[in-house]
Amino acid sequence: MEQKGIFITFEGPDGSGKTTVSTAVYQRLKDEGYDVIYTREPGGIDIAEQIRSVILDPKNTAMDSRTEALLYAASRRQHLVEKIIPALRENKIVICDRFVDSSLVYQGIARQIGVEEVYRINQFAISDYMPEMTVYLDISAEKGLARLQNREFKDRLDQEELSFHKMVEEGYHSIIARFPERFRLVDASQEKEQVIEDAYQIVKQQILSHE
Amino acid sequence: MEQKGIFITFEGPDGSGKTTVSTAVYQRLKDEGYDVIYTREPGGIDIAEQIRSVILDPKNTAMDSRTEALLYAASRRQHLVEKIIPALRENKIVICDRFVDSSLVYQGIARQIGVEEVYRINQFAISDYMPEMTVYLDISAEKGLARLQNREFKDRLDQEELSFHKMVEEGYHSIIARFPERFRLVDASQEKEQVIEDAYQIVKQQILSHE
Repeated sequence: MEQKGIFITFEGPDGSGKTTVSTAVYQRLKDEGYDVIYTREPGGIDIAEQIRSVILDPKNTAMDSRTEALLYAASRRQHLVEKIIPALRENKIVICDRFVDSSLVYQGIARQIGVEEVYRINQFAISDYMPEMTVYLDISAEKGLARLQNREFKDRLDQEELSFHKMVEEGYHSIIARFPERFRLVDASQEKEQVIEDAYQIVKQQILSHE
Repeated sequence: MEQKGIFITFEGPDGSGKTTVSTAVYQRLKDEGYDVIYTREPGGIDIAEQIRSVILDPKNTAMDSRTEALLYAASRRQHLVEKIIPALRENKIVICDRFVDSSLVYQGIARQIGVEEVYRINQFAISDYMPEMTVYLDISAEKGLARLQNREFKDRLDQEELSFHKMVEEGYHSIIARFPERFRLVDASQEKEQVIEDAYQIVKQQILSHE
C-alpha cells in the first residue's frame, strides 16, 4: 500500500469520547493493513512526561495560566519532534488524540489568555506540522460531564465546574469557525458504535484522497 | 524615601561577572536604604525550580531547542508573576540577573531558532513587564571562558565549546543594536571593583531619574 505521511488529530470536550473513538478508528485502520500509529501527549516521551507532571501536579496551585500554556506548548513540541515527525517521515498515518486546538480552547478561551496569543506560542511549538485534518467530537458540556462521572481518577483539570466546560464547548465552536477547512464534525451524542463509524468514514476518506 | 517600582536587569555572557556585580550593586543600594530586591530565575519559586530542573537535567539530551526555549519562557513567567510583579507593586527596585535577553541570545541566536521567533514567545511570557533598563557586562568570549575555568560545578550549558560562546558574544551585540534605548554597557574586562562602580553609577542614575 503506497501512502504519504498523514497527520490527523481528534478534538472535543472532556467526556466526548475522544480516546475511545480515536483508538477504535486507529484499530480499524491497522486491521486493514495501514501503517498507522495512535498517540496522545505526552505519549511516553520522557521529557514531555516530565513537563506534563509539572503541569498536573495538584500541589502547583500557584501556576499562572500563561506558564501553563507555555508548558503545554513545550510538551507538545517534544512529543512532536520525538514521535510524530519521525512517524510522518516514515510515511505513517498519525492519529493524535488532542493537539494544538485543545490549547487554543483550554488556555486561549477558557483560561481567557486569548486565542491569538496562545496560537502564537503554539505556532512556535509546531512550526510546519499543523494537522491536515481534525475530527471534532461534538457534544454539549452537560452530556460530556455526565459521561465523566464514571471516571475514578480526577486530576486538577477535571475539578473545574460546569461553567468552565461550557466555555470549552463554546470555545471549540469558535475555533472551528476560524479553521473551517481543517475541521470535520461528528455528532458525539450518538451511540458509541455510530460515533466510531462516522469518525472512521471521515478519516478513511482523507486517507483515500492521498492515494 | 519615595520611589516607584523600578525593574532593572543585568545581562552578559558566561564569565562576565553578572552575579558578582549585580549582587554588589544590590548590596550598595540596600545599604543606602533603598527598598530593593535581588533575584534571578528560578529564584526559589517552586514551579519555576521544577521547570528549570527539567531543562538542566543532564539526562535530557534529546531536548529540542524549541522545547527548551518554551521551558525557559515558562520558568520566566512564573518567576515574574510570583516574585517580580509583587515587588514592583510594592514600589521596590528589582535587580534581576538575566531575563528576556538571555533567551533571545542563547535560544534565538546561539541555538539558531531566530530572535524574532524567541521574542514572540517571550512577549507572551512577560506581557507588559519589560525591564526599563538593562546593564550589559561587555566581555569577549575568550576572557569570559577563562574566568569560568575556576568553577567546579558544570551543568549541561557549561559544556558547550568556545564557538558557542563566540556566538553568544556576537548575539548580545546584535540584541543591543536592536534595543539601544534600553541597554547600558559596562566594560567588564576591567578590575572587578571598577566594573561594580560603573554598574552602580548607571543604576543609581536610573533610580534618581524617578525621584
